[in-house]
Amino acid sequence: MRTLYYSPGACSLAAHIILEEIGQPFRTERVAIREGAHLTPEYLALNPHARVPTLVEDGFVLTESPAILSYLGHVAPQAQLLDLDDLRNFGRTAQLLNYFSSTVHIAFAQIWRSTRFAQGNAARGEVEQTGLESARRYFTELEELARAGDWLVDNRFSIADPYMLVFYRWGGLVGIDMAPYSAWTAHKDRIFERPAVQRALAREQIEIE
Amino acid sequence: MRTLYYSPGACSLAAHIILEEIGQPFRTERVAIREGAHLTPEYLALNPHARVPTLVEDGFVLTESPAILSYLGHVAPQAQLLDLDDLRNFGRTAQLLNYFSSTVHIAFAQIWRSTRFAQGNAARGEVEQTGLESARRYFTELEELARAGDWLVDNRFSIADPYMLVFYRWGGLVGIDMAPYSAWTAHKDRIFERPAVQRALAREQIEIE
Repeated sequence: MRTLYYSPGACSLAAHIILEEIGQPFRTERVAIREGAHLTPEYLALNPHARVPTLVEDGFVLTESPAILSYLGHVAPQAQLLDLDDLRNFGRTAQLLNYFSSTVHIAFAQIWRSTRFAQGNAARGEVEQTGLESARRYFTELEELARAGDWLVDNRFSIADPYMLVFYRWGGLVGIDMAPYSAWTAHKDRIFERPAVQRALAREQIEIE
Repeated sequence: MRTLYYSPGACSLAAHIILEEIGQPFRTERVAIREGAHLTPEYLALNPHARVPTLVEDGFVLTESPAILSYLGHVAPQAQLLDLDDLRNFGRTAQLLNYFSSTVHIAFAQIWRSTRFAQGNAARGEVEQTGLESARRYFTELEELARAGDWLVDNRFSIADPYMLVFYRWGGLVGIDMAPYSAWTAHKDRIFERPAVQRALAREQIEIE
């Protein structure tokens, strides 16, 4: 049995959606970062970096969103959420996952977790401001990605699409007006039409405007 | 024909080594970041983020180190540099690649590219200092990873191993004494024994103490 440890609305939402898409049995454990649940000894034993998501499967512990998404794409090929026949599509998907994780996500870490980057109040304020400017710049790129077609890779829904949805919500949370990102908004609306996505959002009890 | 765009000693070294390990024909293009070669219009057309590595293959352009490494692991299964039979080993490998890219590499971005995080001199100084402290904390984890066995995943050389080598060199460059990391130093020495690694280092004209 698979268990996903998630925090509502965190980047773990992408893995949560993909588990619902695959349709194999899984459990969830809520680890609300807002309530400090990621800092308990029990959770730190699973994920010493105190991050979400964590996937546990019969003693096998996997962390890092791109790794969990790619793993799920490989173990459930029949769900066709990761193209392993055309390896260039696989490469493009992996590129997007890593760009989301190591670039776009970092801008939000600057905004929300500035102590990772500096300690003094003035310096932290600069880190947060620079993070917001970076997020806006990356959002222009994400809008371009959304313009390429209905879905991000080869016009087929893949493990990359729900990961981009996470940042759509985060943009709203940091006060970015998302309406001008029209292609990305249409991409978000298309994702919302999927029953698996509705189930994951309902379980996390979050809404995305 | 594959072409790898690399900067000497950058994280592109990992992909360079894996291309040598695979043993299929490839070309290299030197894009020395120190000389600003990543900012030419020609290179920006390939890689708008002005980063290395970039892999080009008959018009297919792939960026982001973990994506290139994972792509190469998939297209050359006979080289056995990525375990696709035991998918838990695949997952662990993907987890390491993403941890290296989105966490360890970011600490060095803080040290060397602090303007990505803050603008004022005082704030940038704090960003650099915090980055150095983070790097030291992550290096303790990397030493633990090296203690697990000869190689990082399932005791077999994989696409993850040369990626960790990059940080060994970077540690020396930022003034961290690497000798106390004895398991990691032994890991580095084992990597050096591989002819493919020697060829890549010679082409990049870099040395790792």
